[in-house]
Amino acid sequence: MTTTFSTTRTEHDLIGDAEVPAHVYWGVHTMRAAENFQITDQKLADNPFLIAALARVKQAAARANLQLGLLDQTRAEAIDQACDRVAAGEFNEQFILDPIQGGAGTSTNMNANEVIANVALEILGHEKGDYQYLHPNDHVNLSQSTNDAYPTAVKIATCFAARPLLDALTELEQACRSKAVEFRTVVKMGRTQLQDAVPMTVGQEFGGWAVTLREDHDRLEESLKLVTEINLGATAIGTGLNAPEGYAEAARRHLAELTNLPLTTSPHLVEATSDVGSFVHLSGVLKRVAVKLSKICSDLRLLSSGPRAGLNDIQLPAVQSGSSIMPGKVNPVIPEVVNQIAYQVVGFDATVTMAAEGGQLQLNAFEPVIMHSIGQSMKHLANGCTTLARKCIAGITVDEDALRRQVEQSIGLVTALNPVLGYTQSTMIAMEALHTGRGVAELVLERGLLTKAELSELLRPERLANLAS
Amino acid sequence: MTTTFSTTRTEHDLIGDAEVPAHVYWGVHTMRAAENFQITDQKLADNPFLIAALARVKQAAARANLQLGLLDQTRAEAIDQACDRVAAGEFNEQFILDPIQGGAGTSTNMNANEVIANVALEILGHEKGDYQYLHPNDHVNLSQSTNDAYPTAVKIATCFAARPLLDALTELEQACRSKAVEFRTVVKMGRTQLQDAVPMTVGQEFGGWAVTLREDHDRLEESLKLVTEINLGATAIGTGLNAPEGYAEAARRHLAELTNLPLTTSPHLVEATSDVGSFVHLSGVLKRVAVKLSKICSDLRLLSSGPRAGLNDIQLPAVQSGSSIMPGKVNPVIPEVVNQIAYQVVGFDATVTMAAEGGQLQLNAFEPVIMHSIGQSMKHLANGCTTLARKCIAGITVDEDALRRQVEQSIGLVTALNPVLGYTQSTMIAMEALHTGRGVAELVLERGLLTKAELSELLRPERLANLAS
Amino acid sequence: MTTTFSTTRTEHDLIGDAEVPAHVYWGVHTMRAAENFQITDQKLADNPFLIAALARVKQAAARANLQLGLLDQTRAEAIDQACDRVAAGEFNEQFILDPIQGGAGTSTNMNANEVIANVALEILGHEKGDYQYLHPNDHVNLSQSTNDAYPTAVKIATCFAARPLLDALTELEQACRSKAVEFRTVVKMGRTQLQDAVPMTVGQEFGGWAVTLREDHDRLEESLKLVTEINLGATAIGTGLNAPEGYAEAARRHLAELTNLPLTTSPHLVEATSDVGSFVHLSGVLKRVAVKLSKICSDLRLLSSGPRAGLNDIQLPAVQSGSSIMPGKVNPVIPEVVNQIAYQVVGFDATVTMAAEGGQLQLNAFEPVIMHSIGQSMKHLANGCTTLARKCIAGITVDEDALRRQVEQSIGLVTALNPVLGYTQSTMIAMEALHTGRGVAELVLERGLLTKAELSELLRPERLANLAS
Amino acid sequence: MTTTFSTTRTEHDLIGDAEVPAHVYWGVHTMRAAENFQITDQKLADNPFLIAALARVKQAAARANLQLGLLDQTRAEAIDQACDRVAAGEFNEQFILDPIQGGAGTSTNMNANEVIANVALEILGHEKGDYQYLHPNDHVNLSQSTNDAYPTAVKIATCFAARPLLDALTELEQACRSKAVEFRTVVKMGRTQLQDAVPMTVGQEFGGWAVTLREDHDRLEESLKLVTEINLGATAIGTGLNAPEGYAEAARRHLAELTNLPLTTSPHLVEATSDVGSFVHLSGVLKRVAVKLSKICSDLRLLSSGPRAGLNDIQLPAVQSGSSIMPGKVNPVIPEVVNQIAYQVVGFDATVTMAAEGGQLQLNAFEPVIMHSIGQSMKHLANGCTTLARKCIAGITVDEDALRRQVEQSIGLVTALNPVLGYTQSTMIAMEALHTGRGVAELVLERGLLTKAELSELLRPERLANLAS
Repeated sequence: MTTTFSTTRTEHDLIGDAEVPAHVYWGVHTMRAAENFQITDQKLADNPFLIAALARVKQAAARANLQLGLLDQTRAEAIDQACDRVAAGEFNEQFILDPIQGGAGTSTNMNANEVIANVALEILGHEKGDYQYLHPNDHVNLSQSTNDAYPTAVKIATCFAARPLLDALTELEQACRSKAVEFRTVVKMGRTQLQDAVPMTVGQEFGGWAVTLREDHDRLEESLKLVTEINLGATAIGTGLNAPEGYAEAARRHLAELTNLPLTTSPHLVEATSDVGSFVHLSGVLKRVAVKLSKICSDLRLLSSGPRAGLNDIQLPAVQSGSSIMPGKVNPVIPEVVNQIAYQVVGFDATVTMAAEGGQLQLNAFEPVIMHSIGQSMKHLANGCTTLARKCIAGITVDEDALRRQVEQSIGLVTALNPVLGYTQSTMIAMEALHTGRGVAELVLERGLLTKAELSELLRPERLANLAS
Repeated sequence: MTTTFSTTRTEHDLIGDAEVPAHVYWGVHTMRAAENFQITDQKLADNPFLIAALARVKQAAARANLQLGLLDQTRAEAIDQACDRVAAGEFNEQFILDPIQGGAGTSTNMNANEVIANVALEILGHEKGDYQYLHPNDHVNLSQSTNDAYPTAVKIATCFAARPLLDALTELEQACRSKAVEFRTVVKMGRTQLQDAVPMTVGQEFGGWAVTLREDHDRLEESLKLVTEINLGATAIGTGLNAPEGYAEAARRHLAELTNLPLTTSPHLVEATSDVGSFVHLSGVLKRVAVKLSKICSDLRLLSSGPRAGLNDIQLPAVQSGSSIMPGKVNPVIPEVVNQIAYQVVGFDATVTMAAEGGQLQLNAFEPVIMHSIGQSMKHLANGCTTLARKCIAGITVDEDALRRQVEQSIGLVTALNPVLGYTQSTMIAMEALHTGRGVAELVLERGLLTKAELSELLRPERLANLAS
Repeated sequence: MTTTFSTTRTEHDLIGDAEVPAHVYWGVHTMRAAENFQITDQKLADNPFLIAALARVKQAAARANLQLGLLDQTRAEAIDQACDRVAAGEFNEQFILDPIQGGAGTSTNMNANEVIANVALEILGHEKGDYQYLHPNDHVNLSQSTNDAYPTAVKIATCFAARPLLDALTELEQACRSKAVEFRTVVKMGRTQLQDAVPMTVGQEFGGWAVTLREDHDRLEESLKLVTEINLGATAIGTGLNAPEGYAEAARRHLAELTNLPLTTSPHLVEATSDVGSFVHLSGVLKRVAVKLSKICSDLRLLSSGPRAGLNDIQLPAVQSGSSIMPGKVNPVIPEVVNQIAYQVVGFDATVTMAAEGGQLQLNAFEPVIMHSIGQSMKHLANGCTTLARKCIAGITVDEDALRRQVEQSIGLVTALNPVLGYTQSTMIAMEALHTGRGVAELVLERGLLTKAELSELLRPERLANLAS
Repeated sequence: MTTTFSTTRTEHDLIGDAEVPAHVYWGVHTMRAAENFQITDQKLADNPFLIAALARVKQAAARANLQLGLLDQTRAEAIDQACDRVAAGEFNEQFILDPIQGGAGTSTNMNANEVIANVALEILGHEKGDYQYLHPNDHVNLSQSTNDAYPTAVKIATCFAARPLLDALTELEQACRSKAVEFRTVVKMGRTQLQDAVPMTVGQEFGGWAVTLREDHDRLEESLKLVTEINLGATAIGTGLNAPEGYAEAARRHLAELTNLPLTTSPHLVEATSDVGSFVHLSGVLKRVAVKLSKICSDLRLLSSGPRAGLNDIQLPAVQSGSSIMPGKVNPVIPEVVNQIAYQVVGFDATVTMAAEGGQLQLNAFEPVIMHSIGQSMKHLANGCTTLARKCIAGITVDEDALRRQVEQSIGLVTALNPVLGYTQSTMIAMEALHTGRGVAELVLERGLLTKAELSELLRPERLANLAS
């Protein structure tokens, strides 16, 4: 920021005059913020969903202002065109600010106002910075405050970012469903508390994951509806000061059209302006998704443990060498990276919780970190799901014979005899099998408790696994 | 546990024989668990919702078993009656186990099986412990596993525990709504980022809280629907082993009748048996409720800060002396206790998250701590909301004149001039007001920017606060 | 609280007159607080460490006040005796307040002041409530504020509560160390990322746990030193208002003697009065202890998985029946309960973090929930460690022959050939062993890469496990 | 990754042949990982501390291998030189992997091995990829496993990253200390529970922050010692397989020299290889730092609230315009950004906790996310502290006269009369002052409780604030 630029233009704010590089579209407000906030090395430019959302909010506002006679046609059209180009990503690199910033999003809002104003000025044939023709605050930000424009943009960006995540969850669900079909009749031991329990099929295990992922998908989709309620028109604190009659509704309608989202205006704008409940809710649901995904990945790692001194129920595809010292070792690297994503999402949710709890009076000043945390959760989860589907689930194989032997030698088979022999007698047989290393069937026959045929039917793995279902 | 009892009866499990006090309704399985788990000094008996829910599950199972011919009428009726009495709280003190326990709820399930069996034995005219007539496992637990009976009971207990919380949220909402009416025309300064912003009314502030609490109530109610999906009939791992055809549906129907809850059976019982997603979801929503309640309480403390060197917008009722050293000091003790409850709920959610993530394969062994954490969250939140409504919100007063003076002296009034004077000129007036200590109106008139009448209308507090709305 | 008492005495506070049951030692301040805070069903009485600590603080203050001439000998001695009796637990049931309370501990402090005053009054031959002879505030609380007396008591209570935890960690460490000796020469496969890696001994595994527990013990002990820095003498905000010259030092010295703790007075009492950094630190270290304990328990559950379709490296002792449906099933219930304790501790730490972050200006009003959370963490952890040592670790057994076979059949043995054959050739042999199911040794000999003698020495399990060390 | 490169070289791993761009220094293992892990858009290259640490570990290993006769001088010197250049940052852009990755750091380790091998090959006059002359595994990774080399590098990187944070904490402490001197005699009201308490000085407030920051600095420095204990020489699981006698000590010594860190080797390498306790500990201490920093920033925002309807004890320097709609509004944007950093650190700690708890058996596979989270915490905190010191604390001003008036009008002054008038009478005066709006002094004189001179001395603000101290 201390670089001297060959050419600059002079802009002004309440701090005083400032030299802005002549060629940039951002202005003095962005410049101050860029100097003030040097925290993460990340940039707003990394989040095209937010930039597009900001542009759409400004565009909707301009259309509403035109419609209500607050903005003349020339300026309105220039802003409209500029917003289209910004939304398309043409000026992403002009969004130079750190996503972690003070000011409740004011700097991000001003970055958008300034870029759009300067693009519009050029469209109108003026120089950048000639704000007497079209002003970042008086025209681009007209009828808005950061406190309604920014949260609205954040909500829209969230909806945009959710799409790839929902798609990735569906892809992962389908990968599991394919395997559920492929392994429909492969019998294996089910385990509870890591102890051998009773038989089931590998297909049931994958099918369960598919069901759980579908549920997560649907719960996430539901909670997204909460962020389609916006507060545009609230201005500074929800009283709508300086926004004319009819503006809120007009702006909402234009924004809904531009984004193709079912937006509604909050019925109590004062409440809506300080409330971040929908983000806490959504973040909680993302945590749910993460936790369940993590459980699936932990299961994948458990089930593929071995190859010889582990469960070895399934084999994951090798996608890279596993060890720099142990030749031939193949590790469950894909589930491992997804576990770590899940741990990050839990952390991001903790951040969102703290930030939400810290809101005060008519505003929550910490929306930037809420936005950033939820955005990262969604992106990492989406990438994780896609990776897991393609590089792991799709290539999983099983050794059907080995799994059947495992079932036949298990003690858990005795559970099936419980209704016939009673809990107490069954327990005795199980304990003897365990301590002698002998088989349950063998012991039951030896004691003449059942005939071979009766036993055979009772212990048929497919029956035990309820395979018909 | 090393006490020698004057009279005992002998019971047996896989560890061997054990002497159980003759007068107690619990048996050897409960006794082992009581010896194994001595962690918290709390007891299952502290949670009557869980005991009632366990009894209803056993009752529904007995009815289904009777209907399907698995249980004779005599035993079924004895169990049925016993369950009614247990559900009514008659044997609460027999539920002696620590809520924090290993075994995935097996011990809690066995505690219920044993108590119900012994009550039923007495109903049938037998001695406690005469299990040859009616057995805790073979009859009370018939067609069930801990892995379906326990999670089902936990879900029902959660629904029971939610009722007082929902009622308390409604009571608190109504307390806020009353104050919103009472203070409808009291004008005050709104604040964003703790800086004076623009005027609003005290009524709008309380109204916002009422709206936010209603939303939380409704989101919570929605998320409770997720826990009405049960896995009864799944038995050990979801394959339904040892539960006869038709049992799941019959048991669900009886349980829905007995609890008056809209229960449904999960479409994929293997998934349902290991999945705790609905608890993570619900816990996340409880965290949302807590975080928003905490924000309201922090606001109450801020707004009542003073009495002289603080905001002093509102006055909280004194409910106790504030200080052991500072005479006459009155502190916001009620909001403070609610903040702390909220911090606990955030902690309980972290516990739920960890426990959920730790699930493995066909079961999550950590449901006891999930249950306990959610149960405490609900109870503390319910108590907190009621306390806040009755001991704080209801008694809040304001000094209307002082608040009006605050507004009239504020610099934030200049925002209302923004559309007329433009952002740049308005900024200059604001800065001058700030640095000279003079009023905004004074400066505008002095410069001849507006007539007194124009100014008066623009700065009318009721207009600024959008009081009509 | 609405009970009418046959006899009452009248007390007074800033709210007005109040009828207190005649027989109780607590007074009006406690009564108000008991009415105000009905949140958790828990009581201060459940925490004898805190009661003893409060009594010692009051006792030290009385001695300092006597010494400095602020308190006459008669009153001082009565208070001194009363404190001894309270510290000994004689009046625990008089501490009726909910540990979760607003007011920054004022109510707890007043509960102590009132009980001690009334006990002292009786010692002096007066009636309870005759405060003109000895007053809860003017004499028992003399030279103190809640804001120094309460945090000091909390710190002392924390030191008291840490002792059983440190002892329990030591007991658990020693249990592991005994097993490390017992299994010193038992060779098994080591696993990284759940995949078979290279050989080690069971003794090394248990020895590692012993080392890790010792480290945790030592880190915890270190962090306890942070809470021996107290702020007694700070009074309301750290300026020492109303505490005479010399009081802080005198009180500290008496308190150190009474508690046998190496107490120091904070060098900056304003800082110390609002700072809860030492609690956040300690809570973070408790989280560390919990996380590592949880990892050990997860390992125990993994290693004992089976008995036939799991790792089955070790066998845990059966302490109760495992299943209500699966006869003979034995579950790792003790490690499971410890995992859950660990998840609670993580949650308690989240609560402490929120509460600490919420401190404002000259005080943190949320110390009660900080105290309660840390107290529960310590108690549950102590109980968990003892339970784990006695009911699980002590009874663990292994099948040495089975483990040796496991090692001999492993592919991980090839790692030992890496330095001789190189990474590329070793990888090829490993892959062939994996795909053909053959042994590494067999393949190496077949290809003539090593002689039988060379191979034998290289693959000797004891060499691989570095058993000499 | 699907780009076709004009020239490529062929490399090989257990997956098969792969074409690597001819000009890059990384090889096939890095390439696979780059394809496998596309999660965050961040790169190892963003963390020069880690790259330098990896290079130093490899360099120390090479020196030890040379010394022990495992590596010839030519190769050892080439590796040594290559490491110097990598450590200096010359090849940062070759570290292309996502920091969030599966494989327990194997990919990062292989990225380092490959880059160093190829740089060394060029130094020796060979082509990149001519691994027969110098091999990434057989020579650069000689005597190492990822499982010792990577954690050692992570610890060293952590020490490197801590330096700027410690410096930033010191800078912030000194900024507070300067203000403590500047405002040493400025009297103001102290507040507890946001209620007016008793007087103090602004200098005491800033001095308290300085003390608290120094403590945090020192605690952080202490906890860094925990990460100077390394496990180099442990190889795969801590048994030291394939690392020759004397290697661990030689490598440690070289590494200590190269990094100028007081490194020690863990006394139990099996324990050390799976243990991440020191990271959990450190992360907990970083959370402590964050929480306390957040409290300071919340205080700064509270104290600067207003300018007219707030506390307005202090004035923060304006660093940018505060609002896009409210002209002249200046917001506490710097404290706000630091609060958000603190919320992130709490989140990162949650991630570290989850990842640490998830470790299994002989390794924690989730060190990459632990490393990344701690690295980000340290970087953001360091940037936050510097920003806060320079852009906020340094420019804070106060209005001494206004603050003195605030004290003189306060009710809290009555506390000073407590020892003279007694708690009960003082309370009555305080309540009357509150309800009538009159001054405490006025009421005391009116009632003849004290002479004017007595009162004057008792209420002298400097006395009350204990200014001498």
